[in-house]
Amino acid sequence: MRKEKIVIALGGNALQTAGLPPTAECQLEVVKKTCEYISKIVENDYEIALVHGNGPQVGRILLAFETARDVTPPMPFDVCGAMSQGYIGYHLQQGMHQALLKTNNAMPVVTVVTQVVVDRNDSGFKNPTKPIGPFYSEEEAKKISSEKNYVMKEDAGRGWRRVVASPIPKRIVEIDTIKSLWNSAIVVSAGGGGIPVIELEDGTYEGIEAVIDKDYAAELLAEQIGADKLLILTEVEKVSLNFNKPDQIDLDKLTAEEAEHYIAENHFAAGSMLPKIQAAVKFAKSGEGKTAIITSLYKAMDALMGKTGTQITA
Amino acid sequence: MRKEKIVIALGGNALQTAGLPPTAECQLEVVKKTCEYISKIVENDYEIALVHGNGPQVGRILLAFETARDVTPPMPFDVCGAMSQGYIGYHLQQGMHQALLKTNNAMPVVTVVTQVVVDRNDSGFKNPTKPIGPFYSEEEAKKISSEKNYVMKEDAGRGWRRVVASPIPKRIVEIDTIKSLWNSAIVVSAGGGGIPVIELEDGTYEGIEAVIDKDYAAELLAEQIGADKLLILTEVEKVSLNFNKPDQIDLDKLTAEEAEHYIAENHFAAGSMLPKIQAAVKFAKSGEGKTAIITSLYKAMDALMGKTGTQITA
Repeated sequence: MRKEKIVIALGGNALQTAGLPPTAECQLEVVKKTCEYISKIVENDYEIALVHGNGPQVGRILLAFETARDVTPPMPFDVCGAMSQGYIGYHLQQGMHQALLKTNNAMPVVTVVTQVVVDRNDSGFKNPTKPIGPFYSEEEAKKISSEKNYVMKEDAGRGWRRVVASPIPKRIVEIDTIKSLWNSAIVVSAGGGGIPVIELEDGTYEGIEAVIDKDYAAELLAEQIGADKLLILTEVEKVSLNFNKPDQIDLDKLTAEEAEHYIAENHFAAGSMLPKIQAAVKFAKSGEGKTAIITSLYKAMDALMGKTGTQITA
Repeated sequence: MRKEKIVIALGGNALQTAGLPPTAECQLEVVKKTCEYISKIVENDYEIALVHGNGPQVGRILLAFETARDVTPPMPFDVCGAMSQGYIGYHLQQGMHQALLKTNNAMPVVTVVTQVVVDRNDSGFKNPTKPIGPFYSEEEAKKISSEKNYVMKEDAGRGWRRVVASPIPKRIVEIDTIKSLWNSAIVVSAGGGGIPVIELEDGTYEGIEAVIDKDYAAELLAEQIGADKLLILTEVEKVSLNFNKPDQIDLDKLTAEEAEHYIAENHFAAGSMLPKIQAAVKFAKSGEGKTAIITSLYKAMDALMGKTGTQITA
């Protein structure tokens, strides 16, 4: 029987734990635990590819270079994104290898540094929405905003963060290579949504200051790879209406149409659940039998078996 | 006719120009020029793979995180190496794509984040030789050395730099993937010599504080990929005896035996020409008809045609 293909989008909590120091050492520990859950999916005979977020990491890389600007030049945004792909991809390679070894699986795990083409006229550049880097108090945020001309916004009750443009991904530059590796390796690609580039008239690429939403990038990858399922892992087991309110309603199944209805009613937070739902809807509508699932890392296997999570279909 | 396979090791001057600011923007310009020369090799019907150094880049990543340690945690050495692979690989992808387009070649260029296994008992850990990061005056170097417990050494008359262990690469973890991509893409791998890892008893990998020489890593890759030639690009057109002295003698052809003789006579600077010669000798001895060439980027095509450079054979 043909194995089902799944693109898995890993949220921030699959890489770092709130409350623990944001060190590489702590991240590696969290990644190793995450990979234990992911390897269960591989063990259950699914073929997978991984896409990860990079908000906190790319923010810290930027922050380090900006703080050190008197001794070494700051790095542009696209380069920081490329660095974060190397950093997180490397940890996922180690973590997945370790987890797979425990099930006697020697499948290679590789990271492909990935450029993703966006439209330079994307409306995202006029209205930055993507939070990156550390959280600040309102007072700190206002100071940074006036000093560095950054756009700072309050992020879902957790504090203030810098926000940058989050344009829609149009094309994965390295897609042919990712496809060709599918059968022989677990590929980590489009990390942090991919390094955002625009395509110039002569066909060359140029980096641009933006962060592509990793859920959108995972969706694009899932479509292009012909995946059966798009599995978006986040902090909650199910998508909810009236999230964190007394009348919260968890959703088991959603049609694309229902999801679009709830989006129109503003049920989902921009930069948080909204892009996940939008990516899920796009994937569900992309072809017959396509299913997007939004759930937590810990419930991923149960959700694939239809026992939990929010399942979005056409 | 079968195309000749070449692994090309790019030295520091293929990525950055001494005297220009060490910014990402300047690097990209230099990389684009470098790629024009490399694409000439592709145009002349060679199949290539690229390995690059990362000394200045990994040093600056480390430096930025150390300088910013009060606002964000410093990153360990292996992670900085992984970041530098993302950074430089991304630039090479853009640069090679642009250069190849001019010759109507749409070959994909991909970067594989690469771990390279070293022996934890390697003698390199007792005697650090690999220079990384920016140059300092003797006075600055001594201050840094006493403050941070770094080993600082004078680097070939150009100033003082931090040196770290440079163990011998034993195995490229992602070799199967790199091999499988050879026919369909130009692969950038083992950047900066690869992320140094040790293999634990249970078969898992763990990062270690070291920089693997990129010429050794390129040699290992060339052997494992079955390359016909190892092309080591550096600042000089030919290897010399009595370098920079009145009685300098440039070398056109060298047997492995002659090269070993000159090594024993201490003709080549550790951390500079010595590892190139050693890598070249190892490759020349690895099989029948194997040739290593040491030359400059600008003379690369001429050297492949046998017109210049130093050719090392068994």
